[in-house]
Amino acid sequence: MTLPAQPPEVDVNADLGEGVGDDAAMVALVSSANVACGFHAGTPIELRRTCELAVASDVRIGAQVSYPDWDGFGRRFMEIDSDQLIADVLFQIGALTAIARSVGGTVDYVKPHGALYNAIVGHRQQALAVVTAVAEAGLPLMSLPGSVALELAREAGLPVFTEAFADRAYTPEGTLVPRTEPGAVLTDTAAVAARVVDLAATGRITAIDGTAIDVHADSICLHGDTPGAVAHARAARAALADAGVLVRAR
Amino acid sequence: MTLPAQPPEVDVNADLGEGVGDDAAMVALVSSANVACGFHAGTPIELRRTCELAVASDVRIGAQVSYPDWDGFGRRFMEIDSDQLIADVLFQIGALTAIARSVGGTVDYVKPHGALYNAIVGHRQQALAVVTAVAEAGLPLMSLPGSVALELAREAGLPVFTEAFADRAYTPEGTLVPRTEPGAVLTDTAAVAARVVDLAATGRITAIDGTAIDVHADSICLHGDTPGAVAHARAARAALADAGVLVRAR
Amino acid sequence: MTLPAQPPEVDVNADLGEGVGDDAAMVALVSSANVACGFHAGTPIELRRTCELAVASDVRIGAQVSYPDWDGFGRRFMEIDSDQLIADVLFQIGALTAIARSVGGTVDYVKPHGALYNAIVGHRQQALAVVTAVAEAGLPLMSLPGSVALELAREAGLPVFTEAFADRAYTPEGTLVPRTEPGAVLTDTAAVAARVVDLAATGRITAIDGTAIDVHADSICLHGDTPGAVAHARAARAALADAGVLVRAR
Amino acid sequence: MTLPAQPPEVDVNADLGEGVGDDAAMVALVSSANVACGFHAGTPIELRRTCELAVASDVRIGAQVSYPDWDGFGRRFMEIDSDQLIADVLFQIGALTAIARSVGGTVDYVKPHGALYNAIVGHRQQALAVVTAVAEAGLPLMSLPGSVALELAREAGLPVFTEAFADRAYTPEGTLVPRTEPGAVLTDTAAVAARVVDLAATGRITAIDGTAIDVHADSICLHGDTPGAVAHARAARAALADAGVLVRAR
Repeated sequence: MTLPAQPPEVDVNADLGEGVGDDAAMVALVSSANVACGFHAGTPIELRRTCELAVASDVRIGAQVSYPDWDGFGRRFMEIDSDQLIADVLFQIGALTAIARSVGGTVDYVKPHGALYNAIVGHRQQALAVVTAVAEAGLPLMSLPGSVALELAREAGLPVFTEAFADRAYTPEGTLVPRTEPGAVLTDTAAVAARVVDLAATGRITAIDGTAIDVHADSICLHGDTPGAVAHARAARAALADAGVLVRAR
Repeated sequence: MTLPAQPPEVDVNADLGEGVGDDAAMVALVSSANVACGFHAGTPIELRRTCELAVASDVRIGAQVSYPDWDGFGRRFMEIDSDQLIADVLFQIGALTAIARSVGGTVDYVKPHGALYNAIVGHRQQALAVVTAVAEAGLPLMSLPGSVALELAREAGLPVFTEAFADRAYTPEGTLVPRTEPGAVLTDTAAVAARVVDLAATGRITAIDGTAIDVHADSICLHGDTPGAVAHARAARAALADAGVLVRAR
Repeated sequence: MTLPAQPPEVDVNADLGEGVGDDAAMVALVSSANVACGFHAGTPIELRRTCELAVASDVRIGAQVSYPDWDGFGRRFMEIDSDQLIADVLFQIGALTAIARSVGGTVDYVKPHGALYNAIVGHRQQALAVVTAVAEAGLPLMSLPGSVALELAREAGLPVFTEAFADRAYTPEGTLVPRTEPGAVLTDTAAVAARVVDLAATGRITAIDGTAIDVHADSICLHGDTPGAVAHARAARAALADAGVLVRAR
Repeated sequence: MTLPAQPPEVDVNADLGEGVGDDAAMVALVSSANVACGFHAGTPIELRRTCELAVASDVRIGAQVSYPDWDGFGRRFMEIDSDQLIADVLFQIGALTAIARSVGGTVDYVKPHGALYNAIVGHRQQALAVVTAVAEAGLPLMSLPGSVALELAREAGLPVFTEAFADRAYTPEGTLVPRTEPGAVLTDTAAVAARVVDLAATGRITAIDGTAIDVHADSICLHGDTPGAVAHARAARAALADAGVLVRAR
């Protein structure tokens, strides 16, 4: 006797509550919402409205924690002591948690934002601080495959989610092509949709040099603030549906 | 058979984590710490250190929530929509909760700060917003006896703590003498200490005109940032000990 | 001998640098730009880019000063001491002045924003503080006709600009119909355009009850952040051109 | 004929308006006040009061510009684009300039604060951005001897002030002993006073290894926020008076 095949499924995440992009449209197209926590964007009332949107759409809420850098939208690296960074991350997780609960939701994971996201790929001290804070909050961490933060999180026994990007070109080694290089960002809607299906159904995608590479990811990030973001997301969802891939948070 | 008499006891609270005053000295003299939550004072690392101090001294932690007014130390009234104020209060409670938990503590009550504290004495819309947020967080509210906020909290079934001030003169009607009037603030250490004992042991104090009045309060506030604050607090604790009054959070 | 008739002219202003609306489109349609100064919106680099736009379009720059209320976009009334408000206004004017100069511009007037704009219509203490600060900066003040701020500015010998709104309904008494009432905001592009021509060419407009009223104003405000803002502005400019009215700062 | 000998003179600077330390005491002991500009400390009203103090004491005012890092008191390095940093520095200089003028003062130089001060010693991109902003403001720059910022400022034809520290140990090469090493900070009042006289009168001081080194500096920095800061400053002033050295801004 053979069991019926399980349909493939994938989590799709996007940044919400940042005051840019069309949150109402995006929330209907994702299974996980990375909600800004007030350090790079998001006033408390914006957090609450975003959590309400997520709860209404049955979308998982993650805390999108950042450096304290409102002016720079969290996109600027900061040298910061571990104890400060731990406190900053906990502060943001806690703030979002209380707001999510007040509208019937929960915070189910943490995804660092912007420069902090990039820092903890390789900056061991900051990665350890983030992991420490996330562990104290008892939540899973979402980060880039191969990051020091994921390595430290796994060592600490913390659940982790790896993530791939729908609209970013990859090197043959599986890292992201830097934004400063040509072709780093996919702008063609069909290409983004095809990429999402490849990531979800096979985990194999085509690197910028044509090489086929493996990119296993627990979640696929759709950017919500780029031109055409909503169109990309709609095309991606349609393509996933055509391919028989379920979109849901795990 | 007679039961042995229970010794009288009282909760003594002070503001901590505001970056003013001597937190390390004050925390040893109180049973409840109103910890700033970042809106009028208190960076995340300061919140964490203050919570550590409180936990180490077995002092109860309250969330000292404020208007978003760092420049004005939360001392300026703001007109603010209910949904914004609810979100602001929840944000602060949640932030402090996560930080307190990370150092082995809990947030056990909410005490609004400064202009917000004063506003909810009589401003029904803002009082209702604060009560709504505190109820969503499932915490008791500490406020001035007779305030609209306490009335609304009781109507909502929320636990409340009333509060009296060790160093403020009272009118014969039991309200505070406005700070703009002479004699509004007690500066004599012996007078403050005697007042604290009267509040704790009898609930009866002498108003500014010499009248004896009843001021039943669940907690006594010691200001931590005035000149002589620590001396006042030490004298008050010594006087309470002499009078056989236990100091502890209830 | 008769002199050639002077064509009528009018100043048209809009808010820029607030991170909302289409600044690049609006700057080409106005003669004065009210540039945010960082207290309700506008990071320093946004101020600089906005001033560059204004200078490139030969548009006059005004300092759009606000309460310190980034979270509330400056739309919430604050009780604030006069010396604090004076310092806040000077801080903002100075910050914008240095940035404007660095790109070849100057700050030529001050227009309060949001709740502060509304407050100084009737709140004498705050109006006096704003006028004091603007006088110390040696700049003209733009405000609502009939406001206490204008009265105090005139008494102080300060140059003033009165302002009318292209898209707001007026009462027969010449005040604005409150936004909470139906018909308070004109949304029809043709109506806005006609209103602008009436304001510029005759100073007479039709109040909400059909009465013809006089609204003499030195400048006409076009909102830049409403739906259809750019369309309104384009229609207004075309209508002014058809009517032979020059648009320029005076 | 011989001219009467000119008495030696020196400028003594300290940080003021940061909300830490005893500004009223320090302002009487210095000839230059580095006034915080709101990015790491200093609300507008604090800036104004500090400028009033400086003007009343006939003390020169400098703009103590910082990264936008209130939470970290400007002590954390930030990676920041040049155009952002230029705008940030101009914003702060302008804000302080308007406030200083309103109380009868002027801003006469710029001294970066904390992590920015340290960054521009060697970080060419940020040093160039700071120099560009300071040049646009038309002011002299105060910085560490040997810093890249001073080199770039001189190349740009900008007036510069070099600075030495009264309470920091020096290496034989003339650089500061890092704070993490023992003996890096002088805490003995007599030693600080003697150091100040040596700097002012001879430019020769004793390095941490006993070597005599030359430290030519246009200004001597007295820290205002360390324990014993006021005592150090008083002793230094007395020692300078005994040595016949005039203290004044140049």
